[in-house]
Amino acid sequence: MSGKRPSRGDSNLGGDQVEGRNAVRELLRARTRRVSELWVVPTREAPVVDEIMALAKEVGARIRQVSSEELAEKARTEAPQGVLALAAPIPNHDIDDLLSRPDAFLLALDGVTDPQNLGAILRVAETAGVTGVVLPRHRSAGLTPAAVKAAAGAVEYLALATASGVPALLDRAARAGVWSVGLDGDGTADVFALDVADRPLVVVLGAEGRGLGRLTRERCDLVAGIPMRGSIESLNVATAAAVACHAIARVRAEGPGGRH
Amino acid sequence: MSGKRPSRGDSNLGGDQVEGRNAVRELLRARTRRVSELWVVPTREAPVVDEIMALAKEVGARIRQVSSEELAEKARTEAPQGVLALAAPIPNHDIDDLLSRPDAFLLALDGVTDPQNLGAILRVAETAGVTGVVLPRHRSAGLTPAAVKAAAGAVEYLALATASGVPALLDRAARAGVWSVGLDGDGTADVFALDVADRPLVVVLGAEGRGLGRLTRERCDLVAGIPMRGSIESLNVATAAAVACHAIARVRAEGPGGRH
Repeated sequence: MSGKRPSRGDSNLGGDQVEGRNAVRELLRARTRRVSELWVVPTREAPVVDEIMALAKEVGARIRQVSSEELAEKARTEAPQGVLALAAPIPNHDIDDLLSRPDAFLLALDGVTDPQNLGAILRVAETAGVTGVVLPRHRSAGLTPAAVKAAAGAVEYLALATASGVPALLDRAARAGVWSVGLDGDGTADVFALDVADRPLVVVLGAEGRGLGRLTRERCDLVAGIPMRGSIESLNVATAAAVACHAIARVRAEGPGGRH
Repeated sequence: MSGKRPSRGDSNLGGDQVEGRNAVRELLRARTRRVSELWVVPTREAPVVDEIMALAKEVGARIRQVSSEELAEKARTEAPQGVLALAAPIPNHDIDDLLSRPDAFLLALDGVTDPQNLGAILRVAETAGVTGVVLPRHRSAGLTPAAVKAAAGAVEYLALATASGVPALLDRAARAGVWSVGLDGDGTADVFALDVADRPLVVVLGAEGRGLGRLTRERCDLVAGIPMRGSIESLNVATAAAVACHAIARVRAEGPGGRH
């Protein structure tokens, strides 16, 4: 996604303070954002910290060796794991660009409020080859340090965009010929057997607990669920996203009947 | 799983203090363990708490209305959500019984140490129709209140068993004609296309970060992975378990080429 041009004038998405070993390493590896400073607590016990320092040196970031107390003072997550980087904000991509890709496989979050869930969903999306994630500007978790850390570097590779709301996004998707599939516990379509899985697609995730909003649900072309094969009725939203995104990714990679 | 007879003489698995709304509600709904007491902070804002109190009354548990301070004092998780139940321990099932089921679809955890991950894995396993979960007695998270809460009630429905170690378990599985599939980032088989998915099966999950132990890996009939379609190299172990268990569950339900 690094070649994707962010649209000018749009607000940035934050994410300029990056904490945690995976998140900082991927920030430095990806080279999609300028990194000005690395704060690091020297240690002999973690080769990954040496790797992070070498990468920071390569990209010309200022390296500040600090005590764990100084890092804790600066950090905005509970466990920065000895590293913190200051970087340019995460670019905000243009939604029409994302919708017009012939291989569009987008994820839209309709009210996910927990930063851990948001980060976990971004990590999952990136591993499933999602081509863009759309976040509503309101009623939703932002790219806080906790979310960025939980995303484990996914924010460096994903194309991210903001929308005023998910229903309006789905109207634009429909006009662009992009199918929309809501994911919800009571969805009637099986997420493993979506006829539209290999079409231009936006998958919509609802809020923790409440699921999809009414307007969002009405705008979706179909509402799909993950077959529940036991007594428990629901999955965590990030877990459901993982199952759905990888099930769809498989069909897109292999074709509807594809098997090795 | 409630009809499964726990083997006599085996140690129980703990889990006698249950906290959190989902976990307590499922404990009371499932009726697989005797519940002696419910501690509850009265509230008018959560219908689920009324449901929990009504269920507790039905099963004859002593209901203690307490202040949130009293509950916090007794609780062993950070957010008991106003409810806590004391119950008989979770029964320890017999591994040979689990291995001998013709529809065996087992999960074995080789060193998962984080209680949140353990709980999330149990929740996922239950929703995928897993017929039993085997926990090693050492080097692994136990069924602490945090794990039981994160499992959101799955411990009430799953057949759980302990083993002295995963390699020995896999020897027993082989003798019982049960296939073993390790799940690891570098697995060569695609978890969506396992030839043995609909056979008697044990899926083995490795530790966070380190993956499968050497001996465990050697004992597995095959090692499978989830195709990573982006730049990030790995998924959280509970997320990977979700994708793998539901991918396998689908093949078992529909047959290898099955689609609606």
